[in-house]
Order: sequence, then structure tokens, then C-alpha cells
Amino acid sequence: MENERLLMLPGPVPVPERVRQAMMRQAINHRGPEFGAAYEASVDVLKDCFGTENEVYIISGSGTAGMEAAVANFGRGKKIASPVNGKFGDRLLKIAQRYGDATAIESEWGTPIDLDAVAESLENGAEMVTMVHNETSAGILNPAKEVGALARKHDALFVMDGVTSVGGDEVLADDWGVDVAIVGSQKCLAAPSGLAAVAVSERAWERIVEDRPFYLDLAAYRKSGSKSPMETPYTPAVPLFLGLAESLAIIREEGMAARIARHRRMSSAVRAAVSAWGLDLFPTLDAVHAYSNTVTAVRMPEGVTDSALRGTVKRMGIEIAGGQDHLKGNIFRIGSMGAVSAPEILATLAAVQHALRTAGAKDVGDGVEAAAGVLDA
Amino acid sequence: MENERLLMLPGPVPVPERVRQAMMRQAINHRGPEFGAAYEASVDVLKDCFGTENEVYIISGSGTAGMEAAVANFGRGKKIASPVNGKFGDRLLKIAQRYGDATAIESEWGTPIDLDAVAESLENGAEMVTMVHNETSAGILNPAKEVGALARKHDALFVMDGVTSVGGDEVLADDWGVDVAIVGSQKCLAAPSGLAAVAVSERAWERIVEDRPFYLDLAAYRKSGSKSPMETPYTPAVPLFLGLAESLAIIREEGMAARIARHRRMSSAVRAAVSAWGLDLFPTLDAVHAYSNTVTAVRMPEGVTDSALRGTVKRMGIEIAGGQDHLKGNIFRIGSMGAVSAPEILATLAAVQHALRTAGAKDVGDGVEAAAGVLDA
Repeated sequence: MENERLLMLPGPVPVPERVRQAMMRQAINHRGPEFGAAYEASVDVLKDCFGTENEVYIISGSGTAGMEAAVANFGRGKKIASPVNGKFGDRLLKIAQRYGDATAIESEWGTPIDLDAVAESLENGAEMVTMVHNETSAGILNPAKEVGALARKHDALFVMDGVTSVGGDEVLADDWGVDVAIVGSQKCLAAPSGLAAVAVSERAWERIVEDRPFYLDLAAYRKSGSKSPMETPYTPAVPLFLGLAESLAIIREEGMAARIARHRRMSSAVRAAVSAWGLDLFPTLDAVHAYSNTVTAVRMPEGVTDSALRGTVKRMGIEIAGGQDHLKGNIFRIGSMGAVSAPEILATLAAVQHALRTAGAKDVGDGVEAAAGVLDA
Repeated sequence: MENERLLMLPGPVPVPERVRQAMMRQAINHRGPEFGAAYEASVDVLKDCFGTENEVYIISGSGTAGMEAAVANFGRGKKIASPVNGKFGDRLLKIAQRYGDATAIESEWGTPIDLDAVAESLENGAEMVTMVHNETSAGILNPAKEVGALARKHDALFVMDGVTSVGGDEVLADDWGVDVAIVGSQKCLAAPSGLAAVAVSERAWERIVEDRPFYLDLAAYRKSGSKSPMETPYTPAVPLFLGLAESLAIIREEGMAARIARHRRMSSAVRAAVSAWGLDLFPTLDAVHAYSNTVTAVRMPEGVTDSALRGTVKRMGIEIAGGQDHLKGNIFRIGSMGAVSAPEILATLAAVQHALRTAGAKDVGDGVEAAAGVLDA
């Protein structure tokens, strides 16, 4: 770890040694059985992560490419309702606006999305709802089950960005009525950045649009994916596929239930520390919203600057995240996704606690001890 | 090399150990100085490969993503002339048809593109010409300089797919009047698959369209690329960027002139072997077309099947390529791109020669000796 930093960000996250070794393999032909087997094995575990029996495809591109694929293939020219309560909801809205007739349903970042307004949009003819499940910019978990039920009631498609929840927190795409769910490789899956996966329902396939993009044409992914061995329509990022297959093998070994429990335990520990420090979590919750279990967003205490706080933490070899856009300087964020376990959490909280104290925060309690209590339970 | 196969394909190609080691690095923050420095250093060498002073951006996606970015950002809604004499020309045509009013200028695969028809299209108002420089499906090098001159004469944009020439053969994007040039990582650059780079001229930027895709919005790449440290608009495939930076460092060490000379020497050796075997090269040439220097396409001799030929070669640990689409069974192709040098060429030719003889080809001369004569010169 000498010249590596511990990344406690809401992605990218540290990549296990086994996964990095898998990427080292010499180039293989991506239209052959070895590649096909890695792709198929990955899809198998991803279905478990998504909570779906639907088909899953892997795209060589970032989570944003997955989001665009969902909207462009199934939403072009349609009325789309896009609740926004953070940066990634805003990105999904922008994509929806580029392809369809999108209505922004804006809430202040970190506050609940407006379910009544979503229902109203659907009553007014929205054919698709987009939503970010785990909004990392604000540390809030949006109500996928409730939005899915609304979308089904009005026979609309539900596109859910699960980029930072799938593989870490509970996602039940089929039970919730998600038609297109998206995940990114470098978040809870603890693989290197550069891949997105999408799970697509039969209802969505029935409504695929004619005028589709080329590289992100999901019908082409479906066609190549049905071959044996499985293929991608265009040259895939082979090392990343091999790395992802290994990270998914690790997930299978851990088991999704255990993995979700671990993510929840780690984020509980962070929240316990925040409370002991006397600081406030950033999100405002209601009955159906929850704190994110993969990233914790904390209000910056009076008198402490972002650069002082994060600079001190960085000097101890650890990177935590600041706020994005208008939240810059107002919050800081601690990621707890992927392969993270007690040592990384304790080290990070110890560093942040020290940084808070040296940066001039008042009456900073012993958050490290509070977290240890949670982790030891 | 025990359980690795030598890939003598028109990509993917073997990736040098140094490059694979570079990918092994633990995840780094892609919005920091280390990533930015790798990106900048890569752009610097890529300019040399492209023969351009224009800005260069790297996209996390395959060469096809780069091709789509070029057409979607600068050709949407425009009249496009698309000469086709192989599979990748056809792909570029399909992309052009998806975004613009594209005219196909079809030649039989492996025969020269029709320059008169390109000129006619331009006289009839085409605002963009697309062309594949090195058409690997047919082993032919198309006349970029001539097409560039035609496009300039009519003030049209010239989009050139240099996916399998840039970094291996001579490319002079600025001298030839190329407005958007594209390369893929897993070809002559000898990096892992999964990245594309585009070089964009000022003339192209002046004509960028309003209605752009999201993930492949080159204006967003330009904006993020102008930051210091350099960034990408969305999360990049970090291990691939680090691998590519290393492969480009190797290119800088070799020097572009030496690298081009090496590619030409290797393909000359392959062509000398084909001639000694008594076989025919697949392409038909005219004054401005040339044989590809990164892949050699050979007509399958009478009585030899694709599976017998390539199966025997594969049993000796080497993969060569067959024909694509309607050329399946009619040609075979030997790649000579990337880090390839005399040992790989000699081994491959020896294996192919043996396979030809055992598969029943008549009077197969000593191509290995002929190639050795070229390589020893």
C-alpha cells in the first residue's frame, strides 16, 4: 500500500488483487469460447445482483453509457418523467431531455423525490419514468419499489440507475417492476471502471424504438448475446470483462445476502461515527426514503473548510469525497462500497476524526469508538 | 507462452508485458493529477501517430464508438458520401445512414473505391465523406490523400477510420486534410481493447451539430480535456488508459518512422511468403491503392477449407483470421500489427505453410525461406 491511496469514494473503489491479476492475462480473441464463458458467467452473477430473471448485457463504457442506452433505446420521442434530487438524477434528466419529451420533477438535492408529482406526470401520459436508486451526490436511497409500482399502474417503463446500489445494497428489479436497470463496474461490484451492465425486461423489448444509436443499440447486444459462445456486437474491453468476471466470482463466493449485510454494517458504522462527532447527515428522509448504504454524506461543520478536512485525510493516505456542484464545501462524503470491510472503515474514520479536530471543528466526540462498537456487534 | 495463443489477427494483438503490468495498478481517482498526466502524455504520442496538431480525445469504448462519435457530432442531418470496399466501410456507411443522408458508393470488397463516384457525390452536395483507411476485411489500403483532397476541394468534412492503420502505417491526417481521424487501442497501438481516440480539426469543430449524443458528445470531451489536469466527461476505463499510456511510451521509444518501417518489413515478408507459396493476394489494386501493411488477405487455394487451414495453425498455438461475411472460406488473413517482429512472423508462416500442405494445397513453395530473406535484408 506504500504508494497507493485508500479510495473511500463513492467509486472508483479499491480493486481486489485477484481482479487485477485477472486483467493481466494476455489478449484473447473476443469471438471465442473463453471470452464467451467469462461473459456468460458474469451475466449469471449479475442477475443475482440485479434481482432479475431478465437478460443482462455488458457494455464497454461507463455507467453513463448504460443510462444513455436505456433512454435512447426505449424512450426516444416519448414522454418521460424524471425525478431529480441530486447530480446523477440531473444527468439522467439531461439524457432524457436529449431523447424524449422529459419533465423534470425537481427536489432540493438530498431531499425526498416528489412521488405525487411522479404520479401526476404518469396521469398526464408519461410513458417512462427514470430514477437514480442510490443518489451518491446526496447520500440518499430513493424509493424504487414505490416508483416501480406507480409506473406499472400507468403501464409506463421504469428505468432505474442502479449504478451505485447494484451489487452492494438490496435491488429487486423484477419485484419492483424495473424495466431497465443499470450498474457500473467500479462501484459496489469492486471491478475496474469502464463497464456498464443493463438488465432489460420483456416489456421494454416490446417497446424498443426504431431510431436507435449504433454503439449503444441494445438490439445489437441482444443479438450478439444470444450467440453461443456469447459475444458483444463490437470489440469489448477484454481485460475489463475478465476483471469483472473475477470480481463477480468473489461476489458469488461471498453471497449477495452477506454482501448486502456487510454494506449495511459498514455504513451503519460510518453513521454512528457521524452521530458521535456531533455532525449532521446531509439527507432529509421521509417514510420511503433511506440513507444510502454505499456512501454517507455529512454536512460540513461550521468553520471547517473542504480543503483542510480532505487535505489532512489525504496526507494520511486516504481519499474521501467532497460535495459536487453547489454542494462543494458544504458536505463531505465517505464511500463504503465494494470490498470494503472494518479495517478500511476504522482507518478512514480515525483519519477524518483527526482532520475534523485539527481543522477546528468543536466538540468532536469519539466517532471511531462508536463505529468500532457497531463493527464488533 | 504455455497456455497463451499467439494472436496474428487484424486485432486484437498481443499486448506487451509492460502494458499489462501498467493495468495492474490499484484504482486511482480519475479526476486527479496522476490520471491527467497519463491522459496528456498519451495525447502527445497519439498526435504523432495521427500526424496531426489537432486536439485528440480518448473515448472509453471500441473503435466503433469512435466512428459513431465522428459521424454523430459532425454529420447528423447532412449529406454524406460513403465509399465501401469491405466490412468496415460498410459499418461506417451504416452509421452514416443512421445519422445523415448517406450515399453508399459500393465497390466489390477488396477492389478499389470509386474516386469518380466520390467526386460526383461531392459535386452533388455531399458535406461529409467517410472512408476506412486500412480495410482489414480485404487487406487493402485506401487512398486517404486523394479522398482528402477531393473533400477539401468541395469544402466537405473528411472522416477517416484509421482504426487499423494509425500507429502502424503512415498517417498524415493534417497533410491529407482529414477532419476527424479515429484509432482503436487493440490494433497497431498494441494496447488492450476498449479505447478509441479521435483527432478533430478546427474545421470540424466549427461545424459541430446541435443534436449530439450524450456519452459520445465530443464537445463534452473537449471541455473536460481542456481542464488541468486533463479529464474525461464521464468515468473513464482507468486500467485501459494506464495500459495505453504505457503502450504509447513504447511507441515513443521506438519512434514512428522506425515503427512504420517495421510494419512494412513484416507485411512484405508475409507477401513474399504468399508469392512463394504460389497463392494470390486478395486485393485488386490500382495506382492509388496499396496492400495493407498491417494485415495480409490471401485467396484460399483450391481444395483447402478454412477449418482445415486455421484449425491446423491453431493446434500449433497460433490464431490467424478467416474471411468475414461473404468472404468466409474464400480468404484467410494474417495480421502483422502492433508489437509484431520477425519471430512471430516466421513462426506463423511456418505453421501456415505446414497447414497448407497438410490441407492438400498443391505445389506449396518455401514461403518461410522467402520471408526470412526479406526479414534478413
